[in-house]
Amino acid sequence: MYRIGVDLGGTNIAVGLVNEEMQIVKKKSTPTGAERPGEEIVKDIAALCRDLCAEENVDPKTLACIGIATPGIANHDTGVVEYANNLPFRKFPIADLLEKELGVENVRIENDANAAAWGEAMAGAAKGTKNSVMITLGTGVGGGIIIDNKIYSGFNYAGAELGHIVIEVDGAPCSCGRKGCWEAYSSASALIRMTKEKIDYCRTVGRATLMSDQPKVSGRTACDAMRAGDSAAKEVYDEYIKYLAAGLTNIVNIFQPEVISLGGGVSGEGQSLIDALLPTIRKEQYGGGVVPQTEIRIAKLGNDAGIIGAAMLK
Amino acid sequence: MYRIGVDLGGTNIAVGLVNEEMQIVKKKSTPTGAERPGEEIVKDIAALCRDLCAEENVDPKTLACIGIATPGIANHDTGVVEYANNLPFRKFPIADLLEKELGVENVRIENDANAAAWGEAMAGAAKGTKNSVMITLGTGVGGGIIIDNKIYSGFNYAGAELGHIVIEVDGAPCSCGRKGCWEAYSSASALIRMTKEKIDYCRTVGRATLMSDQPKVSGRTACDAMRAGDSAAKEVYDEYIKYLAAGLTNIVNIFQPEVISLGGGVSGEGQSLIDALLPTIRKEQYGGGVVPQTEIRIAKLGNDAGIIGAAMLK
Repeated sequence: MYRIGVDLGGTNIAVGLVNEEMQIVKKKSTPTGAERPGEEIVKDIAALCRDLCAEENVDPKTLACIGIATPGIANHDTGVVEYANNLPFRKFPIADLLEKELGVENVRIENDANAAAWGEAMAGAAKGTKNSVMITLGTGVGGGIIIDNKIYSGFNYAGAELGHIVIEVDGAPCSCGRKGCWEAYSSASALIRMTKEKIDYCRTVGRATLMSDQPKVSGRTACDAMRAGDSAAKEVYDEYIKYLAAGLTNIVNIFQPEVISLGGGVSGEGQSLIDALLPTIRKEQYGGGVVPQTEIRIAKLGNDAGIIGAAMLK
Repeated sequence: MYRIGVDLGGTNIAVGLVNEEMQIVKKKSTPTGAERPGEEIVKDIAALCRDLCAEENVDPKTLACIGIATPGIANHDTGVVEYANNLPFRKFPIADLLEKELGVENVRIENDANAAAWGEAMAGAAKGTKNSVMITLGTGVGGGIIIDNKIYSGFNYAGAELGHIVIEVDGAPCSCGRKGCWEAYSSASALIRMTKEKIDYCRTVGRATLMSDQPKVSGRTACDAMRAGDSAAKEVYDEYIKYLAAGLTNIVNIFQPEVISLGGGVSGEGQSLIDALLPTIRKEQYGGGVVPQTEIRIAKLGNDAGIIGAAMLK
C-alpha cells in the first residue's frame, strides 16, 4: 500500500510517493509561492498528489496516508496549522482542505522538524529505536523528539523547539527574540557568522588565513580551510564544536535517547563532525559509564526525511 | 486499598502509608545511615513498612504497591538501582530485596526527583494533566518529566537531569563536572553563593546592605532583605530570577507541558516567585499568544511529594 508525503517549505513544495519499504518511488515539486492564500497552496499540493498517483497508476483513495510536513505549529489532532512564520497560515485547516480537494479522509499533518525526526526514526538513522531526537543544523537549529514511538510536541503542539534552548544567558541575539539560544551558536548561519568574524579579525590584525581568499563565505568555508591546515579556521571550527557539543550534551541529559541524529547542511561534514563532538559529550554527559549511552549519528535520509516522515504519520 | 511510599534520602528514610485519596495516613522515618551496606538500609525500610502496617492494621500483602523513591539511576523495569552518588548502590536490586524481606511481590522503584514529579502530577500542582514537568529548587536543581501520564527518564533511566542543562557555556562550575549548568545558577545553593558574593562586594566598596547583618546566609537572606527595601538584595534577587526564568523558558520551549511545578526550598517564596518569573517567560517562550500556554505553579505536596509519588507508581 502506498503513502504520500508532502514536504511543504517556504520555498518549495516537494511531494513523494512512498512504498511499503518506506522508500520514495517518485517525487515531484513546485515553488510554494508563499505569498499566496493558503487555499491556492493546497490546490497545488493536490495537483502534485494527483499527478504522482496518475503516473504511477495509484488510486488516491487507496493511499494509506497523505501526510503533510509543514512549518509552524501543526495540531496533528485537528489537522489545523495554528500558526506559521513563513507561510500565510493562521488556524488554517490544511488537512480538511486537502481531503476535500482529493476526495480522501486520511490527511495528517505534523511540524516539519518533527516529521523529519519521525522519518529518521522510522526509516533512517534512528530506525529500530523507541526514543530518539533529531537535531537539524541548517539556517536554524531544528528539533524533533520521538518518545515511546510517538512524536512529542507538547500539549499545544508547539514544543520540541530545541534550537531555542538558551545556552548563553545574555548571549548572541536569536531570530526568536531571545538572546543566547543554541540556534544562535550552532546553526549553519551561526557558523557563517563566526567565520566572518574571524576573517574580519584576521584582516584587522594582519593575520593570514585561507578563509579570506574565498569569494563567498559559507558553512563549509571554515571546515575546508581547516582541512587545508589553516589555524584561524581551526579556531572557528573548535569554537563551533564547543557550543554544538554543549547543546548536544544538554539533549543527552534531558532525554537520554537511544539515538540523536544530526541533519541539515552542517551534518554533511559526516563522521568527522561526530568524532569532534564525542569527547566533550562523553565527558560531560550525566551517568556516563554506568548505563548505556546515547549514540550520536549522522541522519540518513537527507532532504527526504520530511517526505518519508510525513508519509509515515500515524 | 492502601499503598506505601518510601522516600529514601541520603540523610533520612521516610515511609508513608497512603490511602485511596492519595493522602498520607501515617508516616515514619529513621536515619539512613548512608555509610552502611545497602542490605541493612533495606532491612530498616522493611521494618518501617511492617511497623506502619501493624499500627494501622493493614496486612502488607494487601498493599496495592510499595514504591521506593531513591537517589540515583533507578531502573524501574528491573527494580535495580544502577548507581547512586550518595548511597552505596551499584547495580543494587533494591526491589527484590525489599520484596523478600516483606514477602510481597509489588515493590516498584523510581528516581526521587521523578517520583516527586509523579506525586505532583497525581495528587498535587499538576493533578489532572497528562504532560507536566517538576523542577525542584533545593541544594541542586532536580527535574522530573511526565509525558502522556508516564514518567519519562530515557532509555537508560538516567534522563530528566534538567538541572544539568548548560545555560551559560564556560560558566560557573557545577557539581556534575560541567560548567554553567542551570543548577549552578538556580539552586538554593546558587542563590546563597550569589548572596555571599554581593555581601562581599558591598563590604569591599563600603555599601550598606541589610544582608551583612545576618548571622548566617541562607536562601532567604536576599529575599527577606529585599522585602525590607534593601537595594543590594534586590539586585541579587533580580539576577537569580533572570537565570531561573531563562531555564524555565527553556523547559517551556522543549516540552510545552501543561504545567511546570516548582518545588524545593526556594519555592517557599510562593506566588511572588512566580509573579517575578512570568513576565520573562511569557515574553521569551516560543509560540506565545497563539496557542495555550504552560502554567507555572508552586508545587503542593512539599516534602511528601516523593512518598506519594512512590506510593502511586504504576
